[in-house]
Amino acid sequence: MKVNAETIPLKHVKITDDFWKRKIDLAKDVIIPYQWDALNDNIPGAAPSHAIENFRIAAGLSDGEFKGMVFQDSDVAKWLEAASYSLIYKYDPELEKTMDEVIELIGQSQLEDGYLNTYFTVKEPEKRWKDICHGHELYCAGHMIEAAVAFYEATRKDSLLKIVSKYVDYIITIIGAEERKLKTYPGHPELELALVKLYEVTGENKYFDLMVYFIEERGKQPSVFLKESSLGLANNDKWFHLDYHQAHARLDEQDTAEGHAVRAVYLYAGMADLAKYTNSEKWKKRLEILWGNVVEKRMYVTGGIGSQGHGERFTLDYDLPNNVAYAETCASIGLVFWAQRMLQIEAKQTYGDVMEKALYNGVLSGMSLDGKKYFYVNPLEMNPEVTEYRHDHQHVESERVGWFGCACCPPNIARLLTSLGNYIYTQKENTIYTHLYVGNQTSFQINDQEVMLTQKTDYPWSGEVSMSLQLDKSDIFTLAFRQPAWSNHIRVMINGTKVKLDTIKDGYIYLSQQWKDRDEVTIEFDMSVHIVRSNPKVRENAGKVALQRGPIIYCLEEVDNGSNLHAMKINPREQVTVINSSLDLESVPVIKGTGVRESASFGLYMFDQEPEEDIIEWQAIPYSYWGNRGKGEMLVWLREN
Amino acid sequence: MKVNAETIPLKHVKITDDFWKRKIDLAKDVIIPYQWDALNDNIPGAAPSHAIENFRIAAGLSDGEFKGMVFQDSDVAKWLEAASYSLIYKYDPELEKTMDEVIELIGQSQLEDGYLNTYFTVKEPEKRWKDICHGHELYCAGHMIEAAVAFYEATRKDSLLKIVSKYVDYIITIIGAEERKLKTYPGHPELELALVKLYEVTGENKYFDLMVYFIEERGKQPSVFLKESSLGLANNDKWFHLDYHQAHARLDEQDTAEGHAVRAVYLYAGMADLAKYTNSEKWKKRLEILWGNVVEKRMYVTGGIGSQGHGERFTLDYDLPNNVAYAETCASIGLVFWAQRMLQIEAKQTYGDVMEKALYNGVLSGMSLDGKKYFYVNPLEMNPEVTEYRHDHQHVESERVGWFGCACCPPNIARLLTSLGNYIYTQKENTIYTHLYVGNQTSFQINDQEVMLTQKTDYPWSGEVSMSLQLDKSDIFTLAFRQPAWSNHIRVMINGTKVKLDTIKDGYIYLSQQWKDRDEVTIEFDMSVHIVRSNPKVRENAGKVALQRGPIIYCLEEVDNGSNLHAMKINPREQVTVINSSLDLESVPVIKGTGVRESASFGLYMFDQEPEEDIIEWQAIPYSYWGNRGKGEMLVWLREN
Repeated sequence: MKVNAETIPLKHVKITDDFWKRKIDLAKDVIIPYQWDALNDNIPGAAPSHAIENFRIAAGLSDGEFKGMVFQDSDVAKWLEAASYSLIYKYDPELEKTMDEVIELIGQSQLEDGYLNTYFTVKEPEKRWKDICHGHELYCAGHMIEAAVAFYEATRKDSLLKIVSKYVDYIITIIGAEERKLKTYPGHPELELALVKLYEVTGENKYFDLMVYFIEERGKQPSVFLKESSLGLANNDKWFHLDYHQAHARLDEQDTAEGHAVRAVYLYAGMADLAKYTNSEKWKKRLEILWGNVVEKRMYVTGGIGSQGHGERFTLDYDLPNNVAYAETCASIGLVFWAQRMLQIEAKQTYGDVMEKALYNGVLSGMSLDGKKYFYVNPLEMNPEVTEYRHDHQHVESERVGWFGCACCPPNIARLLTSLGNYIYTQKENTIYTHLYVGNQTSFQINDQEVMLTQKTDYPWSGEVSMSLQLDKSDIFTLAFRQPAWSNHIRVMINGTKVKLDTIKDGYIYLSQQWKDRDEVTIEFDMSVHIVRSNPKVRENAGKVALQRGPIIYCLEEVDNGSNLHAMKINPREQVTVINSSLDLESVPVIKGTGVRESASFGLYMFDQEPEEDIIEWQAIPYSYWGNRGKGEMLVWLREN
Repeated sequence: MKVNAETIPLKHVKITDDFWKRKIDLAKDVIIPYQWDALNDNIPGAAPSHAIENFRIAAGLSDGEFKGMVFQDSDVAKWLEAASYSLIYKYDPELEKTMDEVIELIGQSQLEDGYLNTYFTVKEPEKRWKDICHGHELYCAGHMIEAAVAFYEATRKDSLLKIVSKYVDYIITIIGAEERKLKTYPGHPELELALVKLYEVTGENKYFDLMVYFIEERGKQPSVFLKESSLGLANNDKWFHLDYHQAHARLDEQDTAEGHAVRAVYLYAGMADLAKYTNSEKWKKRLEILWGNVVEKRMYVTGGIGSQGHGERFTLDYDLPNNVAYAETCASIGLVFWAQRMLQIEAKQTYGDVMEKALYNGVLSGMSLDGKKYFYVNPLEMNPEVTEYRHDHQHVESERVGWFGCACCPPNIARLLTSLGNYIYTQKENTIYTHLYVGNQTSFQINDQEVMLTQKTDYPWSGEVSMSLQLDKSDIFTLAFRQPAWSNHIRVMINGTKVKLDTIKDGYIYLSQQWKDRDEVTIEFDMSVHIVRSNPKVRENAGKVALQRGPIIYCLEEVDNGSNLHAMKINPREQVTVINSSLDLESVPVIKGTGVRESASFGLYMFDQEPEEDIIEWQAIPYSYWGNRGKGEMLVWLREN
């Protein structure tokens, strides 16, 4: 099979810049150890995870009962995956030893036939393969595979790979097109994209074929899920019916992103893998339709997706309420996964721009600056009093919290941060695509030599990026890089000389020439502040603007601007200033501007009078930094004066 | 005990004007017969009520099981009350016969000891007085008393009065301050105001004293409700805890309107009766505090109250979302009850204005123009697609429906309409107060003669009101009438000569003189259209205006203005025109004006561009008339251009 474009392996990308290095170091030094403690129930005050203990019980090494969610195993898998990437980033023998032990424990919990899931081994063995729609068996299998592949990439040890291969080999005897096998597919997609990784690392077609089966079987009516009791229960709640699982129609007939947002984007990522490996125009078209629906009708300006708490799901086109948003951190992470795979199919500005938007805004907002607290839900408007009081806001937290009963987001952030190197570049033949601007050193193979590319930048705060090459002998190849839609103009120089940009396609600039050692490409993006407006069909944003600089969406916080942020109107046509300011842990550019604040001495309603307006100065900070200086109001969409 | 001001008895007020006569005739000719059919389960397609059948079963005349809500009896009581007022409005021997039969049935269902409640007689006899907080026993008793008093006023028959007196006499042996009695109070207030009516018609102090006991006992901590199992259940849901019942603190310590909105205003109406009869400054002050909190911080511009569906309740100051409003029809009706009693204590513009606002907007919107369909919830913004789809809108209906499983609103509207005469006037010694402008003829006693007052008006569409007097001999007395805050100026003439308004107090104009037969006072209110703005603290109304003409709040509907109403901006400073227009069933003044509609060809977000604006004309109709011409969008708060 022909791959359109390949991601450059993680171990060939060394991230060096301040912005990300701090966060990846945080992942390595704080988050991964912290999450290890969490998985072992050693965080005082946080909800106990019981995840490692579940494996001990399943392995017969401990007495007790399974505790936690039906998908508790996946937290261990995601931790293993993140820790594997962390080993690649910086080797740590202690960590590897711990991981070896966990993997050994996982192996001990695996049943004779290959089955591997502590919930169904310990708690409800009679329900194995009986609740595929809600039971997360295949979902957990997927995460275990991703962990196995990552661990293999990091260590070349196939201990976990053997375990998961045995498990999938067993699954293949249970599920599939052949007679007497279950005709089913994952309730929570994830195994699809994981199977592709397993195929990539083992070269075994059977894993790819199972993924294809899942994609093609999904949504055939009447759905197999209708026979399962847990979906029967869901009949009383339309939000958890077939569309919640993207199983309401065959995938090649779905035009809109429906249901649980994380499920949806994980599934689309798997579909993109399928399209990529098969060069299928049918699936490529389908993905473009779904991509268009998400990013042009159902995505928050932060790259958040899922606009309803109940069902954590997509709702309707242009239905994007800011204060009761769901915009789960994991859903933005899934959007990054999907975008990454779309970029492997085709380098298009929209994929890179959305990946970047989600990464710098909807994903990073999920974690506190110290890496210890997390948002599951990422609203675009916060009034703590209202959020803590109103029933229809109860899925929203007014402050990040330590860990979750359903702790999917923290390890998901950790594995994304530690594998960030996977999202920066792709290579297709002799073209190196740069999708993200991140200070790093990477090496790739062009013709018969290894080329070193060094990216230096203070991105996302600065628009200046330098890319310098090291190569043994000069050679002809192409450097392609994304021109973000937010950059009004772009200046590209080679070795200090401005070049004319002859080839720009789908928002990617192509520089093809004979490159020699020490050649340097410098790029200057326009970093002026944009006034962003929504399509007038978005009810909640009518008459409002957001602020964007580079890829960063800004917001106002009460700590800088006082309360009643909705009573403020900003002057969208006046000059704003951007200055660096310390936000406790980091110094970041903040935006300052002028506007007015409405106030009134009257009671509730008044006739034929306008409220008094005081001229004010406001200060906006990057959205992902909100909530790091105590509890207070926050607002992304601001009224226009 | 001294009463501050008395309502003129209903039988002395004959309503004659087009606006209300049509609705009262509708109540008499359509609603009351329709509701009788509903109570007897004879409405095809509507949810069955079973309310009459429950009484048959309790009376031993029918086999079967109790069906319906725990407060199903109250629907029969409210129907009896409405039908009684209807008899006063227009005598109907057939109707009286039916009522006699129902009352006989009710008597047959009454137990030996006086107990009267079909739910606890038939379904859960062991729980009698064990679930006072949620069981609605005392609530149903209250409605039965109101029915008995109304039936007595209409017919002078004391058949139902005897039944309810026996019941209350029994209740007095169960509940009260004395040792061994239950120290409790109604979970759903209603009995308080009913006991005052029973006291008024029987003169028995014991009924008044029980009411005082309820008011003074309520909210003492630890609350008696905490011992009841149903509140125990509610511990899992904070929205149904003590504040839901206004039992979180003693009433003389409550500063804000909390909990279930209907419960709250029924309770405050009872408190106002207490203040009125005892001339208690303490309770009067308390009521003023609570009134101020409701009308200056927690009331929709339509007179709707209760801004959260879950718990049908008050939330926080200035928390008034328009699309997920609760604003139950019954709550606006309860606000009218409360205002009526505040006006008996003191004639103040705010009480009359709010009574009028609730009546013409939040109450009337609850019923379709043909009287056959009802809203329980009265939102100020409707997008049917969103309302029918989103989980957090599920308490809102996009169209009025025939009857409800919990059918409290339809009979409540019926009893208010048929007793409208009770809300127009009060008399205090030789002063006749006019609170509402409604074409009618009324008679009252001044000194030793009966005076006839004829009010003629096309209110609320016209601001011209004529009041003419018929009296045998000229006499000195005072005509006082409310100057609504929405009228910028007022012109008053006596017999065609403009008079100087010397005495205006609290928004009431006082005309004291020697009146003679055929004297005519004509009043002209200013009916220009007001641009209404909210306090900037109301998040959802920031940058928006509403339209009001006279007491009528207007709204835009999709049928007149196309979809995406939120994309429209109206010009608040330009002249609007008011013309009569036929809205299917009635000809009413509509408001027309100009503005712009935003549109855009871009996708979801755009940089540094404003949407295109097309100049448009818009048409607004009275809010209470919305939803009578098919399903569609509706909007009260409009963006300003």
